[in-house]
Amino acid sequence: MRILLIGAAGTLGTAVHKTLTARGHEIVTVGRHSGDLRHDIEDPEQITRMYRAAEGAGAAGRLDAVASAAGDVPYKPVLEMTPEDHTAAFRGKVLSQLEVVRQGVSRIAERGSFTLISGVLGREPIPTGSAAAMTNGAVEAFVRAAAIEIAPQRVNAVSPTLFTECVPQYGEFFPGMPPVDVDTVAQAYVRSIEGAQTGQVYELS
Amino acid sequence: MRILLIGAAGTLGTAVHKTLTARGHEIVTVGRHSGDLRHDIEDPEQITRMYRAAEGAGAAGRLDAVASAAGDVPYKPVLEMTPEDHTAAFRGKVLSQLEVVRQGVSRIAERGSFTLISGVLGREPIPTGSAAAMTNGAVEAFVRAAAIEIAPQRVNAVSPTLFTECVPQYGEFFPGMPPVDVDTVAQAYVRSIEGAQTGQVYELS
Repeated sequence: MRILLIGAAGTLGTAVHKTLTARGHEIVTVGRHSGDLRHDIEDPEQITRMYRAAEGAGAAGRLDAVASAAGDVPYKPVLEMTPEDHTAAFRGKVLSQLEVVRQGVSRIAERGSFTLISGVLGREPIPTGSAAAMTNGAVEAFVRAAAIEIAPQRVNAVSPTLFTECVPQYGEFFPGMPPVDVDTVAQAYVRSIEGAQTGQVYELS
Repeated sequence: MRILLIGAAGTLGTAVHKTLTARGHEIVTVGRHSGDLRHDIEDPEQITRMYRAAEGAGAAGRLDAVASAAGDVPYKPVLEMTPEDHTAAFRGKVLSQLEVVRQGVSRIAERGSFTLISGVLGREPIPTGSAAAMTNGAVEAFVRAAAIEIAPQRVNAVSPTLFTECVPQYGEFFPGMPPVDVDTVAQAYVRSIEGAQTGQVYELS
């Protein structure tokens, strides 16, 4: 398949890239500062330009799938989380990914798929994680709702806990919560892209 | 208890008002165009003024609980849901209620509670309901996350399906989904306000 991978340079994106490439897929990578295409999906106009560019990039042609591993949210105590912080979280992880789906429907294959990123904090909260929780809940509910409207195209979310690779940096914030290897998370992208399910949230925690 | 009720003039707000009054509580009602206080909680500055005014309204004094029955979101096919629509939904049902909690923590009783409104569409989607789903998922995940940070204050969400009273107007959009009487939904507010639970989503569907 020809797959657009957004957030390809991050810890997760790198693993997804490696896993999908090893399975024989052609990957068009997108990042803000690196990748085949350089776009910031927080800006809807850049999403339009991203899709136009993707149709001409690499072995040009139609995309079979879009996978997102991109989402920025602020972490701070809930009482310090200003309206601007919540709005930044919404724009950085929710609106960006929703708009990738909306604009992508007319541009990807008839039975193509979208795979979005959410995360564990919507169901297993930690202090300072209220904005992350809010965005994850939003993305997961959107996936269930959009799935019934865009069929036969598909949309799923991957919802991982802390990556094993990030335990040295963030492990103290996830006491007693088993981490997951980023390669295992990448398999959920395979499941979403190569499988036939839609409206699913693949929980890895 | 002395309870601030936001969105008191709506179908749900009216029922919650009646139920809480019958149980002996003092209610300070808030609405955009009616009520003891007139404020639009989409504007964070009006939330500040609302809390200041509530401290002087009626039998003036500290609030024991805040209950929200207010949230506006657009309904349209997912492919017509623009970034402006999603942002309006976020501001109208998510950011507004999150800010009511954040600003309220320093203003309500030490063991006071917040009760927010979400809805069935985050778990049982219908066509044209993707923005509603997104907001409901966001509110419910926020409630779980905020609860662990604001204790011993509490925060819960009430998540009802279509009200029986609204079946004539909207029933066709909820085929085979049993409606719930608005008085039953009002009992979930009682459960949240008078009970001791926190971080809960009371599903009525």
